[in-house]
Amino acid sequence: MIIPVEWKNNAVCMLDQRKLPTEEVWLTLRTHEEVAVAIENMTIRGSGAIGLTAVLGVALGFLNNENIENVCARLGRTRPTAVNLFWALNKMKKASADGKNLVEEALKIYTEEIEANRTMGKHGASLLKDGMTIHTHCNAGSLAWAGFGAVIYAAQAEGKKLKVISDETRPVLQGARLTCWELQKAGIEVTLICDNMAGSMMKRGGIDCVIVGADRIAANGDTVNKIGTYPLAVLAKHHNIPFYVAASCSTIDANIPSGEKIPIEQRDTAEVTDLKGYQIAPAGIKIENP
Amino acid sequence: MIIPVEWKNNAVCMLDQRKLPTEEVWLTLRTHEEVAVAIENMTIRGSGAIGLTAVLGVALGFLNNENIENVCARLGRTRPTAVNLFWALNKMKKASADGKNLVEEALKIYTEEIEANRTMGKHGASLLKDGMTIHTHCNAGSLAWAGFGAVIYAAQAEGKKLKVISDETRPVLQGARLTCWELQKAGIEVTLICDNMAGSMMKRGGIDCVIVGADRIAANGDTVNKIGTYPLAVLAKHHNIPFYVAASCSTIDANIPSGEKIPIEQRDTAEVTDLKGYQIAPAGIKIENP
Repeated sequence: MIIPVEWKNNAVCMLDQRKLPTEEVWLTLRTHEEVAVAIENMTIRGSGAIGLTAVLGVALGFLNNENIENVCARLGRTRPTAVNLFWALNKMKKASADGKNLVEEALKIYTEEIEANRTMGKHGASLLKDGMTIHTHCNAGSLAWAGFGAVIYAAQAEGKKLKVISDETRPVLQGARLTCWELQKAGIEVTLICDNMAGSMMKRGGIDCVIVGADRIAANGDTVNKIGTYPLAVLAKHHNIPFYVAASCSTIDANIPSGEKIPIEQRDTAEVTDLKGYQIAPAGIKIENP
Repeated sequence: MIIPVEWKNNAVCMLDQRKLPTEEVWLTLRTHEEVAVAIENMTIRGSGAIGLTAVLGVALGFLNNENIENVCARLGRTRPTAVNLFWALNKMKKASADGKNLVEEALKIYTEEIEANRTMGKHGASLLKDGMTIHTHCNAGSLAWAGFGAVIYAAQAEGKKLKVISDETRPVLQGARLTCWELQKAGIEVTLICDNMAGSMMKRGGIDCVIVGADRIAANGDTVNKIGTYPLAVLAKHHNIPFYVAASCSTIDANIPSGEKIPIEQRDTAEVTDLKGYQIAPAGIKIENP
């Protein structure tokens, strides 16, 4: 299993997920500003990983004698949707107010979250039977530090043989680039499809369940996750296929009554119109990129 | 309106749709083999355009004194799903058996199909009201020589102001590259989204109907069209949004009782794993590309 972000020698060591699957580049970050930029530009992504990275970013600010309020404000402006970010920053703000050593506190939270992730994996694995084919969207695996990946890996560790269908997940292709990469590395059979192929595959039969991660879960259970999750849920319902959300408690936002109130990030239109500098749409076209 | 394929000076003049939207390159083809390759590699695509191109390809074979049976067999091996291809080749085989001049016959079919397309446009336009927002998938516009495009343009000609939401249509991006390009050129407001965004937009409201083209329609009305059409239909049903298929009679295959019997083309896996040479998935990954 890949560990995409770690504390090493008083610095944050991070896998650059933008370069996957063709290059495996590890970065060393020494300031909270470098960490904030890495979250913004999706060097690291995934709700769990974003929370843990923010915690380590605050620890860097503490080491660098920065004002912790300012550090937390900066990190809080990086990604609006994933609630783990705010959960993590609130924990660190409280520890700072209590006068704690924020490096020790960060490592404590980090370790607890790994444990929560392991437990979630065990719970999720109990839903999966040997020989099942599981459909997933985006990346909620070890690179995202929480969720589905843990579930699949936990089931694999129990000796269950599973097949995974991975959506490519436009526009940033986390399914094609990350989920396929980590499952292939873990020796799990994975088939890549474009997002729009899931419906026909469900109709044809052979998909036993859908598992996705979550960016934020409202108090009523409404779940916000990567764009493309909602149509999968409608399709799964239409075809009577079980649909599971794998998430840790830090992803639940009890302060938000329902999904409509969760802020949805609008990202750069170039993610839709360009792919590594190759223009795939006419110049000046109007774009939506939620 | 763009005319993507024409007969000019005893040759087939064709817009290279693979190069859109960044380059507008016109090709001159002089043999049926060149035409067959152009259909295979999607220099030209769209069920209506494929049928008309095949007709003109047979005319080239006739001019070059080729064996018409062989010419039709070669052209018939290019794309298995779109039935207009076989409809067109059967018309040309019959004309050949009747000893007709196949250039004249090709131009007659070509003209009749344009007229059918115009009539379809009028019928379709009667469903659209001023101010509507229409969702579409892939390209069934003037570049595809039939269908939706004709409907939108016919409605525009009647003075109706419409907005279009266009899916990018992975893997070959005909929505992003072709639909957006031709609608922008025609002065129709178009917004590009990734295929997986349609569900959320339907839920949010503001999409008044979905219009798509068709590759083949079975005798019972089952419709086969570009991958990603089926999930849109399920989503439209779930949100009570009207879903229309715009197609000409040449797209109906009365010999096929239902959709399950329609052959589905499986295309090159590189369409999913690579984009203009940029690798977007790990090497050796398993792919589906229907």
